[in-house]
Amino acid sequence: MKLFTVGPVEMFPETLEISGRQLPYFRTPEFSEIMLENERLLKESVGAPTEAKTVFLTASGTGAMEAAVINCFTEADKLLIINGGSFGQRFSDICRIHRIPYDEIKLPFGDTLTAKRMAEADGQGYSALLVNLHETSAGQLYDIAMLSEFCQRNHMYLIVDAISAYGADEIDFEKYNVDVLILSSQKALALSPGISMAVISARMYEERVLKTDSGSLYLDFKEHIANMTRGQTPFTPAVGILLELHHRLKQIQSQGILQMNKEMQSLAERFREQLQQKGFTIPAYPLSNALTPVLLKPHAREMYEALKEEYGLIVTPNGGSLADTVIRIGHLGNVKWQDYEELLAAMVQIRERL
Amino acid sequence: MKLFTVGPVEMFPETLEISGRQLPYFRTPEFSEIMLENERLLKESVGAPTEAKTVFLTASGTGAMEAAVINCFTEADKLLIINGGSFGQRFSDICRIHRIPYDEIKLPFGDTLTAKRMAEADGQGYSALLVNLHETSAGQLYDIAMLSEFCQRNHMYLIVDAISAYGADEIDFEKYNVDVLILSSQKALALSPGISMAVISARMYEERVLKTDSGSLYLDFKEHIANMTRGQTPFTPAVGILLELHHRLKQIQSQGILQMNKEMQSLAERFREQLQQKGFTIPAYPLSNALTPVLLKPHAREMYEALKEEYGLIVTPNGGSLADTVIRIGHLGNVKWQDYEELLAAMVQIRERL
Repeated sequence: MKLFTVGPVEMFPETLEISGRQLPYFRTPEFSEIMLENERLLKESVGAPTEAKTVFLTASGTGAMEAAVINCFTEADKLLIINGGSFGQRFSDICRIHRIPYDEIKLPFGDTLTAKRMAEADGQGYSALLVNLHETSAGQLYDIAMLSEFCQRNHMYLIVDAISAYGADEIDFEKYNVDVLILSSQKALALSPGISMAVISARMYEERVLKTDSGSLYLDFKEHIANMTRGQTPFTPAVGILLELHHRLKQIQSQGILQMNKEMQSLAERFREQLQQKGFTIPAYPLSNALTPVLLKPHAREMYEALKEEYGLIVTPNGGSLADTVIRIGHLGNVKWQDYEELLAAMVQIRERL
Repeated sequence: MKLFTVGPVEMFPETLEISGRQLPYFRTPEFSEIMLENERLLKESVGAPTEAKTVFLTASGTGAMEAAVINCFTEADKLLIINGGSFGQRFSDICRIHRIPYDEIKLPFGDTLTAKRMAEADGQGYSALLVNLHETSAGQLYDIAMLSEFCQRNHMYLIVDAISAYGADEIDFEKYNVDVLILSSQKALALSPGISMAVISARMYEERVLKTDSGSLYLDFKEHIANMTRGQTPFTPAVGILLELHHRLKQIQSQGILQMNKEMQSLAERFREQLQQKGFTIPAYPLSNALTPVLLKPHAREMYEALKEEYGLIVTPNGGSLADTVIRIGHLGNVKWQDYEELLAAMVQIRERL
């Protein structure tokens, strides 16, 4: 089996070597030191300044998305959400559940998020923009420079779910004035799922987090941030994944995150070129380097099944209304060009009989 | 290093072999089947009937404790909490944060929870009792038969955090009319931390969960239970730990959970006998088989440090007011009698110079 999924992904042998080790007890200075280094390396990899805060949650990405909303906003806010698929919808669900007023910019599948579309939301008194930088259900990469500029001119906070964009696409926390950046362990980090992270700007921490009653013990940022000053978490964390993270962040530091983006970009571009040469269709909107959606209506589900059952190649199926329309082919983790050659050949063979 | 901790604990080589494997993609019938078997085996191991529901959360135990409270109770309830240490306190914190009225039965360190003490709370109109069956900060095991009887005669729901009692002490969901049983991966299951579970009675599900607005997306039981009908979770789970769990539950099934309790009991009793023969003091209240507290005032912290630094033996230190008073020696996971002989010898040597 080879994974071309978007999480968990094909892991690196060095990571798996760590995963298979006995875990240490974690309330120790040794583990604290690892956690403080995790914080430093993570912030460095996203271009966040030293004064930014970091929270390590034992949770899926959705837990960190919900935590970001409830620790920063209340019923007195009005938020703007880019809803271009199931992950944008998730931000809306979270706001609805917590009775935080919000409007959506709805993007039907296929539509591109433009500066013109954003300009229609100018001057509406929103306190923040919530966006999944890479809307993973569709593969669209939004223009962070454009969104950042929109937030700056409207004096809005910028909350970026970069769960599947991290490592694949350029992220610069400081340059784009990001206020909360949400990350997760099982995407380009290629670790086991179970840890999600939030990097929080000093202004968000001071102006909002410290003054907001999150209404949760488990997802409270204040508790986590207070504990992280000594390199600890308030509750027993997924220790193993945090050790995997430590190894991986050191590796990313030595490779350089921009180099990592570039390599994923060249892999994605080469694959897309070959796909199109072979007569496959990909969407017209801007794509993340993390994955390539392939339009296969109405045979997407059959393509997924045949790749899995006959070739042991696992691509990512879509749910809901897109199930028959699109498969998503990930470029995250330990995947190489020769894996894509094998995948392409299989896709061509399967297509012949669909 | 050898862990005599209460989580993470010394893991079994067979578990670590699984931890070191590449993870599969999880939105597949194969993974669903594993999850449905996880549910069946887990319920069987706690004596829960088929109609009970199970939730697998990617979270620390505290996440599951909070989820249990918010999915079952509201501001219209009045709850009773046994607060005999930091985990009882955690239930109180959760209720305070969610504005759910509660009273506490406070047990100062050293006090035993008696039927007489419970009887003082008879007829007060409480909707439920919240209890950490084994208050892990002190090592006290409460009498589940007595607490169950209290709940029955007062028509109260019974919420049992059995995180550190599971596998060590007898738990019988059906016999004791438990309504929510809370479990976690890193105690007697001896898995990586990161997954916590709740087993929910049919009556609690129908009378409460279905009718309660949990106020959370991530911790909502309804979402989880609906997904578990097809063996899935609403959000990407800690796939690796769920695979470890599957292996371990099969192992526990073939060993028998009562046999597992018995072996841990005989290990704990033999250790306590030897400790006392060597002049160490243990508390007078009833103890869980999961750990042995040793009273070492005012040298507890030094004992912990010396065992760790000089012998590579990691026992569990206490925090807060008990830091200098008590160390806790776990009996969970892959620990054998010869490990305790080594530990006892080291403790005697260290005591000589304290």
